Amino acid sequence: MTDHKLASLGDAYINFVHSLAISCKKNEPSGAKVKGSMLAQALRKVGLRELLPSRMTRHKLSDAAEAILVYSWLQNFVTLEESVLTMVEAEDTIEGLSRLLEESKKRIRFL
Amino acid sequence: MTDHKLASLGDAYINFVHSLAISCKKNEPSGAKVKGSMLAQALRKVGLRELLPSRMTRHKLSDAAEAILVYSWLQNFVTLEESVLTMVEAEDTIEGLSRLLEESKKRIRFL
Repeated sequence: MTDHKLASLGDAYINFVHSLAISCKKNEPSGAKVKGSMLAQALRKVGLRELLPSRMTRHKLSDAAEAILVYSWLQNFVTLEESVLTMVEAEDTIEGLSRLLEESKKRIRFL
Repeated sequence: MTDHKLASLGDAYINFVHSLAISCKKNEPSGAKVKGSMLAQALRKVGLRELLPSRMTRHKLSDAAEAILVYSWLQNFVTLEESVLTMVEAEDTIEGLSRLLEESKKRIRFL
């Protein structure tokens, strides 16, 4: 969760997933970046914040979420299509990210 | 090729493909953005520049390349895995992008 390089790849991953989801929702191609604050909020929402040291910046929390999300995809715990669908079906971006993180949490052994 | 919205989605797409390719090459996760100048150069290299109006900025040329690349993926002319592999096998980023555009050129009817 604190792997900065994994977070960097995760950033490209989640922006692509989000862009595809927005494109599906709008029914036209669209590119969009996921805000770090939303990733940090989703991380807290699913109780993953507690696994990290205290005094972490929002940026670091966002990195942790990105690392988890792309790790799940790299490990084939989730497909790109499933992730996009989850984001499409969610009410908003934070809920979509929370669902993806929740799913990852179930699959990854954190301890 | 001049669809700005498609280019916007294409930007997220090609950054993800490039990040995965760099990750494979370095054998560690990595996030990287493709420079617009490289996309514009690749577009020229494969002779797609001629299909566009003269007096286009480098930014617009880069947009055109991004639109073509993601269009190919959306139309299932190429898979994400194939695109990453093409980028990995290429000598450098411009050559990789050129190969992807060349492949798209073969598949898409431009006129």
